[in-house]
Amino acid sequence: MSENSSRRSTIAEIAAKAGVSIPTVSRVLNNRPDVSAATRERVEQVIKESGFIRSRVKTVLKESSGIIDMLIPDLTTLYPVEIVRGVEEVLERTELRLALSLTHNMLESEERWLSKVIDGSTDGAILVLAHGQSKRLDMLHQHRIPFVVVDHRGELGPDVPSVGATNWLGGRLATEHLLSLGHRRIAIISGDASLRCSRDRIAGYRAALEDAGVAVDAELIRPGAFIQQTGYEQTCALLDLADPPTAIFAGSDTQAMGVYAALRARGLSLPGDMSVVGFDDVPLASIVTPALTTVRQPLAEMGRVATTMLLRLIAEEPLDSRRVELTTTLIVRESTAPTRR
Amino acid sequence: MSENSSRRSTIAEIAAKAGVSIPTVSRVLNNRPDVSAATRERVEQVIKESGFIRSRVKTVLKESSGIIDMLIPDLTTLYPVEIVRGVEEVLERTELRLALSLTHNMLESEERWLSKVIDGSTDGAILVLAHGQSKRLDMLHQHRIPFVVVDHRGELGPDVPSVGATNWLGGRLATEHLLSLGHRRIAIISGDASLRCSRDRIAGYRAALEDAGVAVDAELIRPGAFIQQTGYEQTCALLDLADPPTAIFAGSDTQAMGVYAALRARGLSLPGDMSVVGFDDVPLASIVTPALTTVRQPLAEMGRVATTMLLRLIAEEPLDSRRVELTTTLIVRESTAPTRR
Repeated sequence: MSENSSRRSTIAEIAAKAGVSIPTVSRVLNNRPDVSAATRERVEQVIKESGFIRSRVKTVLKESSGIIDMLIPDLTTLYPVEIVRGVEEVLERTELRLALSLTHNMLESEERWLSKVIDGSTDGAILVLAHGQSKRLDMLHQHRIPFVVVDHRGELGPDVPSVGATNWLGGRLATEHLLSLGHRRIAIISGDASLRCSRDRIAGYRAALEDAGVAVDAELIRPGAFIQQTGYEQTCALLDLADPPTAIFAGSDTQAMGVYAALRARGLSLPGDMSVVGFDDVPLASIVTPALTTVRQPLAEMGRVATTMLLRLIAEEPLDSRRVELTTTLIVRESTAPTRR
Repeated sequence: MSENSSRRSTIAEIAAKAGVSIPTVSRVLNNRPDVSAATRERVEQVIKESGFIRSRVKTVLKESSGIIDMLIPDLTTLYPVEIVRGVEEVLERTELRLALSLTHNMLESEERWLSKVIDGSTDGAILVLAHGQSKRLDMLHQHRIPFVVVDHRGELGPDVPSVGATNWLGGRLATEHLLSLGHRRIAIISGDASLRCSRDRIAGYRAALEDAGVAVDAELIRPGAFIQQTGYEQTCALLDLADPPTAIFAGSDTQAMGVYAALRARGLSLPGDMSVVGFDDVPLASIVTPALTTVRQPLAEMGRVATTMLLRLIAEEPLDSRRVELTTTLIVRESTAPTRR
């Protein structure tokens, strides 16, 4: 499935080439005794020739659960779904299975997850937008559970392996695009201010405005949750300002859908009366009318990179870098237009 | 999270009430020796008073992986995401974790999954739209792995525990709605004809037409995949007919988005020139313009019911029914209108 790993053989292909069943290949990979010496040799030979990701996983399987745990906030927006897709693309080339848990953005759920993971057995963990900071990450450390963080709240120590996107750049690109269309009253609706990614996007927005000599107006900066309702409510509030904006930069594509709904409810046309930019570029963005101009962050790739890092940590191989930032790009579609003012 | 289970206590609540840590509660639930008699008694008392789902899970945990495996086709449409949400809502009230695997609609992936599940350890499995029929389900039987099927291809034996929606009724409701708006040339784009749910919807469509005395035209029945591209291509083909339809009933909301795109590409207005009905009612349906009239199937609830059935099977408790069908309902929004012809 992954473009990156499509050349590698799967267990099924190895089984076919060696003329044995899939469970037999698996038994060989797990060093189980119930395989004849001749069969083991034949399978080992095919594995050697196949490029199957084994060296990293072999260690894992010796005394392991064969499980990678992943914690995500929820499944009501497409942001985590895309990251899960990337994680799964890498794991399906290994013998590991993916255990998925949701926090529903509640600290309590995160604690329950931690208890499950530590009490059960896991080979490693990927945490997406986790609430827990040092305290909880410390517990994983104490239990010697390798983990990688994708996006995060607050600050991470420099030694915590993490993957993110260039949020500051994304914020700057979106704002520069709107400035280039003549907009000067540009609002930003962002995610929770405790999230690093939200703060970085606002900083990029500020930098673009300042570079263009446009004063930053605190009234136009509207943090909230990465959900549709926040987009709706903040847009209504922005429209009620004495001097409303002509463009809105939403914190996520999901928020942008709330912006769309609020504009429609007020009888405003899009992009005629208001330009809108989203963030993420989930599949939704190109389906809606007008198609959404948005900042693409490579979510599936973030999942793939985090998983590859985790497999290296599990195999006790060195990481090239403990902090990886993947680049964001602006995708211009139909929801932005030159200002009428 | 679940409306059905919100009254039940979580492990965290039990820990708080008993004045112990979450891992301690877990140790008691797992009958581990490293808990003092006094603590065990206090925790057991709180558990007894709490309504925590224990009896079903206790057996599982004795010699178990603490893992429920779930197989879904992919994460590129919202249909499986909603079912996963439902499964997770039930599992988060237990000590079990959810291991998620994707088939990417390939038989080979399904076999690889089976090999992982059987070779690793699992307490039970939920299969969504699985390719594999008797042969593979037999392997799960042989390994005494309890499982529940959600939707499915081909036929299932009457003894296979399964959950679905009333697809026939949904097909009939959608078609009756279009008939009531005066449409007579009504096309249906459905999913893969090997899927039970696709065939049942087409049968419901036929029944509604026949009841209304409208001849069924084989040219207007268009099976394909449950993806946007199928909706796009089949709509183009339908528009090229000598006598094109005035209404299209899509097999899924995702397919309906392809219908929307094809109509826009041809310069047709919606619902003025063509009425469109979807199937599923994923969150997307109410976000798009015009908002999509669709048949709601309770996907999250299907996931919840399948999980509850699986927990009963694991605990060797009897099922009320081995085949559960949840009802579908028509949600009328803006994409359907009286015919102009």
